[in-house]
Amino acid sequence: MLYKEMTTAELSAEYEKLKNEYEGIKALGLNLNMSRGVPCKEQLEISKDMLDIINSDVECVTIDGQDCRNYGIMDGIPSCKKLMSDVMGVTPDMVMVGGNSSLNMMFDTIACFMTTPVCEGCVPWYEVKNRKFLCPVPGYDRHFGITEYFGFEMITVPMRDDGPDMDMVEELIKDESVKGIWCVPKYSNPQGITYSDETVKRFAALKPAAKDFRIMWDNAYVIHDLTDEEVSLLNIFDECKKTGNFDLPIEFCSTSKITFPGSGVAAMAASQNNMKVIKNKYKFQTIGFDKINMLRHVRFFKDLDGMKAHMKKHKDILKPRFDLVLSKIKENIEPFGVIRYEEPKGGYFVSVDVMEGTAKNVVSLCKEAGVILTGAGATYPYTNDPHDSNIRIAPTAPSIEDLSKAMDVFSVCAKLSAVELLLGK
Amino acid sequence: MLYKEMTTAELSAEYEKLKNEYEGIKALGLNLNMSRGVPCKEQLEISKDMLDIINSDVECVTIDGQDCRNYGIMDGIPSCKKLMSDVMGVTPDMVMVGGNSSLNMMFDTIACFMTTPVCEGCVPWYEVKNRKFLCPVPGYDRHFGITEYFGFEMITVPMRDDGPDMDMVEELIKDESVKGIWCVPKYSNPQGITYSDETVKRFAALKPAAKDFRIMWDNAYVIHDLTDEEVSLLNIFDECKKTGNFDLPIEFCSTSKITFPGSGVAAMAASQNNMKVIKNKYKFQTIGFDKINMLRHVRFFKDLDGMKAHMKKHKDILKPRFDLVLSKIKENIEPFGVIRYEEPKGGYFVSVDVMEGTAKNVVSLCKEAGVILTGAGATYPYTNDPHDSNIRIAPTAPSIEDLSKAMDVFSVCAKLSAVELLLGK
Repeated sequence: MLYKEMTTAELSAEYEKLKNEYEGIKALGLNLNMSRGVPCKEQLEISKDMLDIINSDVECVTIDGQDCRNYGIMDGIPSCKKLMSDVMGVTPDMVMVGGNSSLNMMFDTIACFMTTPVCEGCVPWYEVKNRKFLCPVPGYDRHFGITEYFGFEMITVPMRDDGPDMDMVEELIKDESVKGIWCVPKYSNPQGITYSDETVKRFAALKPAAKDFRIMWDNAYVIHDLTDEEVSLLNIFDECKKTGNFDLPIEFCSTSKITFPGSGVAAMAASQNNMKVIKNKYKFQTIGFDKINMLRHVRFFKDLDGMKAHMKKHKDILKPRFDLVLSKIKENIEPFGVIRYEEPKGGYFVSVDVMEGTAKNVVSLCKEAGVILTGAGATYPYTNDPHDSNIRIAPTAPSIEDLSKAMDVFSVCAKLSAVELLLGK
Repeated sequence: MLYKEMTTAELSAEYEKLKNEYEGIKALGLNLNMSRGVPCKEQLEISKDMLDIINSDVECVTIDGQDCRNYGIMDGIPSCKKLMSDVMGVTPDMVMVGGNSSLNMMFDTIACFMTTPVCEGCVPWYEVKNRKFLCPVPGYDRHFGITEYFGFEMITVPMRDDGPDMDMVEELIKDESVKGIWCVPKYSNPQGITYSDETVKRFAALKPAAKDFRIMWDNAYVIHDLTDEEVSLLNIFDECKKTGNFDLPIEFCSTSKITFPGSGVAAMAASQNNMKVIKNKYKFQTIGFDKINMLRHVRFFKDLDGMKAHMKKHKDILKPRFDLVLSKIKENIEPFGVIRYEEPKGGYFVSVDVMEGTAKNVVSLCKEAGVILTGAGATYPYTNDPHDSNIRIAPTAPSIEDLSKAMDVFSVCAKLSAVELLLGK
């Protein structure tokens, strides 16, 4: 029965029941964590053979004979540029391979544009005192962190089933002080939404007032399927070529959630114009990133097909975790009408909306009972969720057993908070 | 006989002789490179066993049980912080371990201060329109590149036998728009000079007008001896503690020239105040650097003694190269009075001053004869050597045989250029 259809007496009874359950759970002294999109140990194990690829008997040379152990090759070894270009569906000349973190490359890109004009006739963003950035919500807290660090006013754009609200985006970019937008176009963080063809086409057709408006296209989950269906995403660069907007997007990806989160390989892709500005910064910043690690990755996977075969192993580990989270939600909470959720076909999260006005309380009750969730509001800039309802569940790290316990706790807390609110407690 | 004591007739005869020698050399069609401080293949080989340290049978965990393969530990694993703190002679809590490049950490530090105040009551350097940086000369071109990129006016300070001209430094820092100085305090690039105790003490005692003046203490060659004598450098932090200037220096080092230039580990050390600002940037920039590579290094070396033992192997490879360069200079050029040079006890370079007004010509003649040197002027900001005399010789990369040929070419070119100038050609 839906809580909102219950009488006060019925709600009070439910409250007592849930309160008892909650106290019982608290007494267990749990210590569980569903807060971050961190691969579990089993996932790390499937990449461990990569650590044998490079050893003292192996020649660490590029396909054109350069020693990967030494200095040089600022934008990455050719074979790794090729591999990452295949991941992103672009040509290798558009790619720069970096260190172990695409977040770092995104930060560095924004940092670069803070002090250097993005293109001719523009000023560095530092000089745009009322600079703004568009943030689809719910979204990735670390994206918002970067633009907050650099003093952007962040304007939220609601996510629809098929990507950000493009009517709103098209309206907002008429403001010249709006300099960019954060996008996770495939299996978005946290909802797992993949942008529709129409959404990508509308992105490619944008005519921002600011010549230096850029789309930060974080393709973090580009091959991170949770089903056998390969959900397709239009190639943003192909679309932008058609619209004459080739300088608009800057794409990022990494192997952090393919091999090792701490020791993967990150890459970015951009037009020649954008790359000129970006590489002119990198050439002062470094002599080159870790080429042995690039070689290790290339020789481990061989090609994109090798990488995709590897991703199936991740899927096999993760799918039961996601299924468990979803079945717990469906069985424990949904019947009472106090939760909305997405069923992701890829990515790392299950995004839920608990009853409006209760998310903070749910997270806090869970914490008291020993279950750490991502902070309520974390999926919004300034951690300000105006509805206080979105919670990001990260099912990957805990064991199935722990996850089951944690979701039971979550279920009780979500319901208890809802009932408390309805009773005006 | 010194050229300057020769008659015109004697010089003309010498010119014809050198010209013939030069044409003969050119006909050999050499292709040699003494331009960059790049380790040779033999040097890379001595670290190759490090590539066996981490493999699929090894547990990649920190001393406190954290999985190095996964996300996290933003400032480096504890054992690597300890190792790098021992290298720099500081406490581990002062250290942050980064990626594979200390240059990258230096760039990032300056970049950070461009958009974030270094300390309370200061403005980001971007807002200091006439910002300046002190550059001891001759110095490291990549340092100068960073401050040029960020729009600093670079003010040169001549190097003495015992470090930068401190009278001049003390005078120049009275200008509040002077925000820092680049230092390679041990075995300086390119001269191999180690700062004297007095120089370090005077650095520690500086009272700059700018509260946000910082010393970029690039200890790139901290254990990179070329002799059995361990040349000692006073610890800048110890001295700054005495003078109450603990926030003044920021130190950098790396294993680029200890293990692999492309795949080493970089680190920085700074006061708590400085680290607070720097880490507040890094926490938005990355979730953490490559911890497997940190672990690989720690397990390979075990401790500072292990690292120092390893450096002796480098010394054994490099010493004959440096000896060769110096003996060629002494035999071929010095008798004619057209060269001054340093005899480095460590580091990666031999810095020479050819006859004033001839450096560019020497480099160009060498190039025509197939020997690439660092560009003349590269050791000065804006590549502007006012005397056109300094040339940085990098003896590490070529084989002994190639180095010998290259130095013969260099000798002829240095003398030919001098004679041409004296004859007014």
